[in-house]
Amino acid sequence: MSVTAAKGFTAAGIAAGIKQNGNPDLALVVNDGPRRAAAGVFTSNRVKAAPVLWSEQVLKSGQVSAVVLNSGGANACTGPKGFQDSHATAEKAGEVLGRGAIEIAVCSTGLIGVLLPMDKLLPGVETAAAALSEHGGEKAAIAIKTTDTVHKTSVVTKDGWTVGGMAKGAGMLAPGLATMLVVLTTDAVAGDEVLDKALRAATRTTFDRVDSDGCMSTNDTVLLLASGSAGITPDYEEFAEAVRQVCDDLGQQLIRDAEGASKDIKVEVVNAASEDDAVEVGRSIARNNLLKCAIHGEDPNWGRVLSAIGTTRAAFEPDRLNVAINGVWVCKNGGVGEDRDQVDMRYREVHIVADLAAGSETATIWTNDLTADYVHENSAYSS
Amino acid sequence: MSVTAAKGFTAAGIAAGIKQNGNPDLALVVNDGPRRAAAGVFTSNRVKAAPVLWSEQVLKSGQVSAVVLNSGGANACTGPKGFQDSHATAEKAGEVLGRGAIEIAVCSTGLIGVLLPMDKLLPGVETAAAALSEHGGEKAAIAIKTTDTVHKTSVVTKDGWTVGGMAKGAGMLAPGLATMLVVLTTDAVAGDEVLDKALRAATRTTFDRVDSDGCMSTNDTVLLLASGSAGITPDYEEFAEAVRQVCDDLGQQLIRDAEGASKDIKVEVVNAASEDDAVEVGRSIARNNLLKCAIHGEDPNWGRVLSAIGTTRAAFEPDRLNVAINGVWVCKNGGVGEDRDQVDMRYREVHIVADLAAGSETATIWTNDLTADYVHENSAYSS
Repeated sequence: MSVTAAKGFTAAGIAAGIKQNGNPDLALVVNDGPRRAAAGVFTSNRVKAAPVLWSEQVLKSGQVSAVVLNSGGANACTGPKGFQDSHATAEKAGEVLGRGAIEIAVCSTGLIGVLLPMDKLLPGVETAAAALSEHGGEKAAIAIKTTDTVHKTSVVTKDGWTVGGMAKGAGMLAPGLATMLVVLTTDAVAGDEVLDKALRAATRTTFDRVDSDGCMSTNDTVLLLASGSAGITPDYEEFAEAVRQVCDDLGQQLIRDAEGASKDIKVEVVNAASEDDAVEVGRSIARNNLLKCAIHGEDPNWGRVLSAIGTTRAAFEPDRLNVAINGVWVCKNGGVGEDRDQVDMRYREVHIVADLAAGSETATIWTNDLTADYVHENSAYSS
Repeated sequence: MSVTAAKGFTAAGIAAGIKQNGNPDLALVVNDGPRRAAAGVFTSNRVKAAPVLWSEQVLKSGQVSAVVLNSGGANACTGPKGFQDSHATAEKAGEVLGRGAIEIAVCSTGLIGVLLPMDKLLPGVETAAAALSEHGGEKAAIAIKTTDTVHKTSVVTKDGWTVGGMAKGAGMLAPGLATMLVVLTTDAVAGDEVLDKALRAATRTTFDRVDSDGCMSTNDTVLLLASGSAGITPDYEEFAEAVRQVCDDLGQQLIRDAEGASKDIKVEVVNAASEDDAVEVGRSIARNNLLKCAIHGEDPNWGRVLSAIGTTRAAFEPDRLNVAINGVWVCKNGGVGEDRDQVDMRYREVHIVADLAAGSETATIWTNDLTADYVHENSAYSS
């Protein structure tokens, strides 16, 4: 299903030889129209990969005919030659598909600082175009995997129209663990302004609140393409909610497949003075390496939660803070609460609630534990 | 030598039974005068442990007669009872030493959220007072260890006066890996204002730039006590430099003993537009888990350095950034530089230079690699 669940789209995933192990490494997603409206959200890292710089230009028109995605190389920190390569990729796809290069978005993921093997990538675009199919969504999702152990797709079908999508990586727009690439498609009738509004609203509370390891990629990209082939213009709220649901589902899949993780941690901040406060506190907790190690050891170490809250600028009084871990209020009023031995941490999902007792706003950040497997995977990545 | 290298000080380190394994866990450092000037710098975490709240009050007078330090419990997030316990500890020490409680600083380190066993700690203060000695500095340094594998002391002797000290933990004032406690002593004649100025200047470029794991303790404390017993009032610059040297030496010892670390990483940011920019970029690099894993794997992954720089607000242009790892300029002008295979990473110390090409300011942040041992140590800490 994936990006081809919505009508008006074809896709393909092939092995172009970019990855040395011969695995699929090139995906093509084509919007066959009749409309080609699009919106995009990109990494907020100031060191942006060449495909991000290219695709930002493409999105300015609000029109995208196709997306070329490759794994096996990020094409980041590759200078003018890297940008030329992203451009050449779009040129090749445009030529094969009979569209202008400026309508072709490009996404790349893999090691930073290495030029792409264009002698393999450009023929790969032709091969992918020849393999385009209304059933190609799964193969496209497989071809964008890097350290992902599974491919990720999601679909929400409403009354006569559909939003679907695929994702790779485990991260967020800012920041992220490994590059996150997401392509969403819909057959609803929606202009680029509606798409932009719905996409930004969705990513703000989904991908933007997935924070596996606090690191921000140079390549993160989320695209939303609309073919209009369903001929239906949905109510904005209903459409935005469908986009949010697909983003939320894909975000959860990213967390569950994060590098080396053994626990998925839901950090829910409640009773904050503002949503910004709640997000800041949630991120601080989610990025605390000591706490992430404790959760890995199934240790309900609430002191590390308080220690993380204390580093923020959020409104709170230390002696009014409360913390629950898996339903047990182990910290009350900044001190010892219920018996920590009551906390059952045997399961993969861990739920931390931080009560700031300072207002009524809330936010949820998802993260993972920090494990020896994460260290092993990331200490051997480029070798 | 440690805190008793300077004249006018006695110290002791004993096992009071706070730690269940019977290891030394209580230290006492006494300033026998004739002067008792003091300065202190504390954690910037807003969730402060009871001993920090107590000692901040003590330091307001600019006079400290003694410091009681315990390992085996942080007395943090322990509410009003925890504060009463820090106060009672000072009362007991004051009573035994014939001084006012308000002249006694208290430091604690260990697990957060657990009350101290006062039935063991208070008799321990008496035992420690009975064991006070001009040669007690080493024992005091040993008694404050938690996960430290070695005790840390340093001494700088000048013309007739001395600055010495001890430290535990591996961290910084903001933030820190495990609590950092430091007591410095001098027999120079110096008032509390001079001590405060010299101590803040020293910590700003030493302990504050040691960032092992980005986590900020609730208990970090650095104290500087002056007995004046040498009868010499040193030139301020010379005195401040001696204090800086001791802090720098102790900071380096902390990094070399950081939990689970196998590499000490010197992150030197050069050609920044401002010192603040240099520090912000240095910290961002030092806290990047992906890079820290790469260094562990002896992988000169400069892309992760650029990715970390890109998350900051510092002045720079991405295509003018240069990065050297162990002397090899692996990144030039934001792209591929010299052959990364030339980088020799077999040794414990790794030197990363990030050239922002935006000015002439510089700063150095020290950190460690991220290892499976760090995960193991911190996933089992409170169990």
